[in-house]
This record gives sequence, C-alpha cells and structure tokens, in this order.
Amino acid sequence: MLEIALQRASGVPLYRQVVEQVAELIDSGALPPGTRLPTVRELARSLGLTRLTVHSAFTELQARGLIESHVGRGSFVAARVTSALLPGAPARSPVRWQAQGVLADLIRLGEQPDMLSFAQATPAAETYPTRELSNALRAAAADVHMLGYGPIAGDPELREHISTVVRKRGVVASPDEMLITAGTQQGIDLVLRALSSPGDVLLVEAPTYPGMLEAAARRGQRVVSVPVDDRGIDISAVEAACSVYHPRLLYTVPTHHNPTGTSLAADRRPALLRLARAFDLLIVEDDVYGLLGYDGATPLALKAADSDGCVIYCTSFSKTLAPGLRLGVLIAAPEHLPELADAKHSADLVCSPVLQRALTLYLRRGLFPAHLQQVRTLYRARRDALLAALAALPPGCTWREPRGGLNLWLTLPEGILAADERAFCSEAMQRGVALAPGRAFLAQPQHSAFVRLSFGALPPERIQQGIAIVGDLLRDHLRQRSARVARASRESVPLV
Amino acid sequence: MLEIALQRASGVPLYRQVVEQVAELIDSGALPPGTRLPTVRELARSLGLTRLTVHSAFTELQARGLIESHVGRGSFVAARVTSALLPGAPARSPVRWQAQGVLADLIRLGEQPDMLSFAQATPAAETYPTRELSNALRAAAADVHMLGYGPIAGDPELREHISTVVRKRGVVASPDEMLITAGTQQGIDLVLRALSSPGDVLLVEAPTYPGMLEAAARRGQRVVSVPVDDRGIDISAVEAACSVYHPRLLYTVPTHHNPTGTSLAADRRPALLRLARAFDLLIVEDDVYGLLGYDGATPLALKAADSDGCVIYCTSFSKTLAPGLRLGVLIAAPEHLPELADAKHSADLVCSPVLQRALTLYLRRGLFPAHLQQVRTLYRARRDALLAALAALPPGCTWREPRGGLNLWLTLPEGILAADERAFCSEAMQRGVALAPGRAFLAQPQHSAFVRLSFGALPPERIQQGIAIVGDLLRDHLRQRSARVARASRESVPLV
Repeated sequence: MLEIALQRASGVPLYRQVVEQVAELIDSGALPPGTRLPTVRELARSLGLTRLTVHSAFTELQARGLIESHVGRGSFVAARVTSALLPGAPARSPVRWQAQGVLADLIRLGEQPDMLSFAQATPAAETYPTRELSNALRAAAADVHMLGYGPIAGDPELREHISTVVRKRGVVASPDEMLITAGTQQGIDLVLRALSSPGDVLLVEAPTYPGMLEAAARRGQRVVSVPVDDRGIDISAVEAACSVYHPRLLYTVPTHHNPTGTSLAADRRPALLRLARAFDLLIVEDDVYGLLGYDGATPLALKAADSDGCVIYCTSFSKTLAPGLRLGVLIAAPEHLPELADAKHSADLVCSPVLQRALTLYLRRGLFPAHLQQVRTLYRARRDALLAALAALPPGCTWREPRGGLNLWLTLPEGILAADERAFCSEAMQRGVALAPGRAFLAQPQHSAFVRLSFGALPPERIQQGIAIVGDLLRDHLRQRSARVARASRESVPLV
Repeated sequence: MLEIALQRASGVPLYRQVVEQVAELIDSGALPPGTRLPTVRELARSLGLTRLTVHSAFTELQARGLIESHVGRGSFVAARVTSALLPGAPARSPVRWQAQGVLADLIRLGEQPDMLSFAQATPAAETYPTRELSNALRAAAADVHMLGYGPIAGDPELREHISTVVRKRGVVASPDEMLITAGTQQGIDLVLRALSSPGDVLLVEAPTYPGMLEAAARRGQRVVSVPVDDRGIDISAVEAACSVYHPRLLYTVPTHHNPTGTSLAADRRPALLRLARAFDLLIVEDDVYGLLGYDGATPLALKAADSDGCVIYCTSFSKTLAPGLRLGVLIAAPEHLPELADAKHSADLVCSPVLQRALTLYLRRGLFPAHLQQVRTLYRARRDALLAALAALPPGCTWREPRGGLNLWLTLPEGILAADERAFCSEAMQRGVALAPGRAFLAQPQHSAFVRLSFGALPPERIQQGIAIVGDLLRDHLRQRSARVARASRESVPLV
C-alpha cells in the first residue's frame, strides 16, 4: 500500500494531500512508471477516506498526466515523455504542466488588502471610465432584448466597432470573422477546445502567460517551450520543435510579450508565418497588450500579415479599458469559426448581451482613442518609475526595458536559485510586496530565478517603495548566502 | 482515396463538407472500423484543399469519436462502442453524441424575427425587471472595484444572497460552498472539466438537455441514457447502468425536468442517493426550473437530502430573472470546490464583477420573491393555454402535463417517424412556427418522433395560433401518409 500520511487538522483538503503525496512518490522515483496503484476502494479503506475523496485525487493525478487509468485494469503510474532534445535546438521536450492553481494564486495575491502588489497584470483602477460605463450599462439594460440570450457570435454592432479597433493593429476583419469571448482567457481556451485534441503538442514561449499553461493542462496538451530572446521567439527553435513534435498550435504574445515585455522583431514575423504554412501550424496570437505601446512605433499584429488564415487573433478590453467587462474577441479564418462557435456555446452559451451592449455604446461614443492615449501616458510614467527604481537593485539583477504592456521580467542574481524563488516571493509578501514567481510562467523549470513585475496598477512612489523592499530582501539573501559560503569554507577540513 | 464531392458554391464551409461526407461513409459502413484514412497531406492534395482545412475536418471527426489518430501511424475509423444491453435493462449503451451544433441551431431559431417560436426555453422578455436591473448596473459600475477582476469564487455578498434563495429549495449551503458561474451551461461544463476525464461514462436522462450532451461530446465522454417515465428517472435502469458502465457522473434535472416537465417522485429520491453512495457516483443536479412550480407543492431539490456530498447542485437566474445576466451557481462538497475553481479560472478567470454586483443589489432590495410570484402566475396561464390548444391536435399525439418549468414534451402520432422529425420541424418553420426536434434531446435515436414545446415566451393567443398551425401540419402529414399507403396497396401486384 502507498505510504501516505494524512494531516486531518492541517486545513489542506484531504484529496489534495493524497494528490501531493502520490505526486511526490512518483517524482522521487519511489513509484516508477508502470507501477500499479491500489484501487480507489482499497486506498479509501486503508486511509479511512471516502471513495469520493480518493476518486477525486486520482482524477487530478490523471489530469496532471501522472497516472493513467484503464477501465477494468486499474490505475498505473504514467510513462514520462522524455524525448531527447535536438542537438543545438533549445526547444524543451513535451510536458504536462504541473503547476495548476498558480494563476489562481496570482489572482488571490492581488486581492490582499494593503499589499503592494506587482503580482497581477492588472490595469490602473483609477483609469476605469466608471461614469461612462455606468451610464452605458444603465442604457443597455433598459432594452429588454439585452437581457435575453442574444446571438452566439456576439452583438453585431459590437463586432463592427471592434473591427475598427483592431484595424489600428493592422488587422482587417469583418464582423463575420469574429466571435465575442469572455476575455482572452476564454478565447485561448476555446481555441484549444475547438481545434486541438488531448495529447496534442502545443508550442509556447518560455516564459509565457500562465493562463495558457493552465488551459493546456486542462485540455491534456503536451507543452513544448521555445525560448524568447530580446527579439522575440527564437524562429530556429520553433522550426526544430515543429520538425520533431508536429504541434497543432503555437501560442504567442508577439507584441509587448507577457511576461518579458519584448516584441517579435520585424524580420522574424514573415519567417514565423512561413513556418506556420510549411508545418500546418495554427498560430494563436494574443494581442492584449498591442494597443499599449509607450516608445515609438509598436509593430502591427502578426495577423496583419497573415494571408492564409494561419493566425487566430485574440484580444480583449481587460488591459485597455476594464477587466470587469470580461469581453474580448477571437478573429479566425471562416473555416474555423463554426467549430469555435460550437465550443463557445457548449462552454457558456453566449456572453452577456447587456455587457456587450454597454461596451458597444461606449465605443459608439468614440471615447476609446482618447482613453487609450491617456492610459498610455500613465503607464509610460510608471514603467519609467520602475526602471529608475530597478537601478538601485544589487548587482546581478538583469531585465529588459519593456516598450509597452504592463510587465517587466526580472532575472534575480545567480546567488538565488530557481528552487528559492517561491521562498523569496513568500518573504517579499511578509514584507508587504507581492511578486509573481517566474516558475508560474515556465512549462519547464529553469536554472535562474525570475519574478514578473507588473507595474500598471501602482503609482510611481509605490513602485519606488516596493522595489526598495525587494532590493533590501535581495541584499539580505545574498548576504546570508555569502555567510553560508564563508562558514562552509571555514568549517571544511582538509581531505588528508 | 475517399469518395468526397465538394460543392464550393454551396456556402457550407469546405471542412464541414469533408466532415459530413466522411461521417456518412463511416455511418453507412462504406468505411468499416479500422480502415486507414489518407493522410491530411494526401487528402488535401487530392481534393485541392489546404491542409488546414483537412486537418480541421479530421480534428472534428476525432472529437466526434468517429476516427482515431495515432502519432506516426495515421488516422483510422474508430471502433464503435457496442456493449450489449442488459437483459431487461433499458439503459442504452455508451455513445459519443454526434449532433453537435443542435443547441446553436435552437438558439438561432429563437432569433428569427416574426417566428412564432416554441424552440428555445426562454422566459418571457416582458417580465425582465429592466428598470431595477438598469439602476443596479449603473450603481454597480460606479464602484471602481467592480470593474476589476474580483475573486474567482464570486462576489461574497452575492453568495450570501444565493444561500437564501436556494434555501427555498431546501438546500442549506454556506457561501464558502459556492462557485459563481456564467449560467448553468458553464456550471455543468466546469463539472465535466474538473471531475471527469475523457472516455468516462456519463449517465443522462433520455431525453435530456442538449447543452449537457454538447458539453459531454466536447469532453470526450461516453454517454449512457436512462429513460424517464411520469415519475422521473428510472431507478432500476440507473442501477443497471451503474453496474455495467461504472459512470463517474449522472446528470439529472429532477424537478420540472427539461424537456418532459416531470419531477422525480418522492420515493425515488432516497433510492437515487443510495445508488450514488453505493456506486461512488456524483450526481449533477440541474435545478434551473426548481423555483418555477405552478401546481401545489414542488418537491425540494435532491441536494436537500444529500448528507454525503454526492450531489453537485447547479442553478441560475436565467429562467427566473433574465438570461442576459449569465449568472448561476455551483454548490459542491468542499473536497470538489478547489478543482471546480481551478476549472473556472482556466476557462475564463472570473464572472464579471459588475454583473454580479448588480444582481447582488437587486437581491439585496428583496425584490426577487415578488418577482417569482408574478412570473409563476404568468407561466401557469401560458401552460394552461398550451394544454387547451393541444386538445385540438389530431389523435395519436401524447404529452404529460408539466407542473412547472417552461417545457412540454410532445410525442407525435405513430404515422410520423423519428426519421421525419427534422423535416417536420422544417415544414413547421416554413409555416412560421419554430419547434425543437426531439432528436436534439436524445443521445440515442428512438423510434418515435418528438418535439419540445417551450411556452414561456409566448402569450396565450400566440400559443393557440402556433399549435393550430402544428395541428394543420400534422393532419397534412398524416393525410399524405394515408394516401401513400393506399397507393402502395393499390399498385402492388400479386406475387405469383
């Protein structure tokens, strides 16, 4: 029987305790691939749990790809996917992401009162046009039709207005090529739901948006990471990954990338589209930060140059207007739209018509361009405040200057290992600063430790204050480490 | 190579044409199980299509369970699941539902202007409290916090109010046991997403809500149907199905069932809960019609008698208040909530806080009980008008009197076969009446033809008018059939 010790008073749900302990036994090699697990009934009896609890634990272990269940045969520790890396190709081999719940943690972090939070890529609440949206919502709900179900593809007039908005990104799309979604998270989830199958390989950037990793884990996708450098995703690594893994989809944030803030270089864009055509790869372009450029010209969307329908374009109003509207859009080739619409209505039927109409009324009044101009000015100042504050961090910290978006990716000094990342973030939280640990953005662990700093919601003085606390914490960590190294060298005895 | 003839001018997307024709070849037996299909590249070349188009078609065929793809080996026609029926047990064997898009069709039907529509179970638009919701939305959006992301489980005060609402259904639940969902469709989809795996068996009623069949098909579930009679789901059939198929979940609408309008009898309720305990079965109770009872006492929710956390309770405000709010709730045992919350935020992060706050403000004002009283009176009158109108249908039509909800299930006379159902509904539509074909509600085809009549949105005189048209159409069909039978018997020659 499995060696599991439950702590009933710990507050951690019992099924989660079972999941974590079995996962640990598998990770540590104590349960090698192919090991037959006890049945739900046996394990429930031996642990004094209900069968529902054990069944839930097994379901999650299965969802994580750690065990496989076969009707009539039982449950077994799953084989690991351990494809060899290509020589010279830095694409990482497929894995099922095992950090579910990280996104939820980030959202919860942002909710702590009095927390100085860099954790969530949320816009500045003071920029939400409350008066205009408040009036628009009142007017929208006065129309009885807006309180019914409405069309699956979304409000036709809203789609008209969105076609004007996305044209600023170079995307020419008619309302018929659009599906209104409950934000970009739903958009990317619907693409997986409609156009991929469990077990498919999904290419993502390393690092990438955790919401994609979570949706991919739910869909049973195997995730292959491709590195990004200061010119965006590494094209030769994409090509190598396509040759080896035949992915169906590539998810990318080519403009003001989350979390690194970089944009894909102009010469890499046609190269990426060529690869998509050559390998029958669908590109899911997440452009939520596309309208938030602060310096010079922001590149157009990848979709702008997509002549073959290889790119499915997603964006939302969550970063530019207000997340609480929960409204975004998918723009796809006509051949994909019926499947995407089916996926939408089997997920939640339709987006609220009253919210859609309120956004329509807001856009109809022509208020959005001036609003964008205003928030861009605000975020540029905050980005600059962050860069100024970072200059005082101890040596060894590195970052790239984001030219748009709400995020900066900070590499911690070598003395702090990836394994210490969570502890580091916990200590920061104890000092009143919430940080998003780099691990949340990585399908595969890396050697260095990272944090993402989202600067949109904090005024400059709070940014300065928060980064000063992070700097102190870093110095404390590095000092402790030096002390440990010194002690270790003092206490070592000569090998004679 | 496959015999596929594309009609490029037909307006039907090319990938859909490929899907339908391959599906037909498989259904007809022309492509028996195990047949190897051409590769995407080969088929694209031979049909002059892009590989994306063919890949999309294959993905859908795979999602429908008609073909299986194995990396490196190719795609094959899938084996059919043909478990023998138990002697005396009417549970139907597992299938993957192949009528995706039916729900979308129903929603689209309801949108046709001037259509006299019985097709969609929508409430009466004139009952939507536009003024109150309009004011509530305005007030909600004036609070800047309501335009951010908000907590994953939903607005805490909304959950408090919902705990009062569900207490009328006998459900005692604290706000901590709740997850706010974008309507019941999202609720049931999240249960599948969180607590089932692809390939699991799902028990449903025959007939059942099409939204569940669609979500189950998306999740790769095998669906086993259990019949309902005038006392609700057949308990011995549930037991038989549990013994044979070991389902993880049972989806049921035990009160004012959709589409038949019946409620589960009092003596069957403890029996069903006992089965759930005995077979480790989770019951997903959809109670959207629970507060819409018209005659005497409506039974309490099944969840009211659930002492072991076997029942996950879903309901929404779509039928009682306004579908456009897209708000509902899941109530589940504490051990299931973390998984359900993870499933929620990987699907669309959170429900719009502004909509949640507006509903909170509406409920806080105590307006809901009087509103319910008013809509119940209205729907009872419409139900009575429908029953009166049905009395004039030609002989052979049968139905049960719904004591609540918005739906009546009409069995058409024997002369009209299940195969004629769609044609019958199309002809009704040509005469200006939209009906929901019975097939949409059935995981497995049945011999008889059915239509669901949703009566909530039509005033009594429109109901009378619509049913008169249906009656005329039925008489025409039966007359044509008699004429065909007579001609066939006239023209037959003796076998000598």
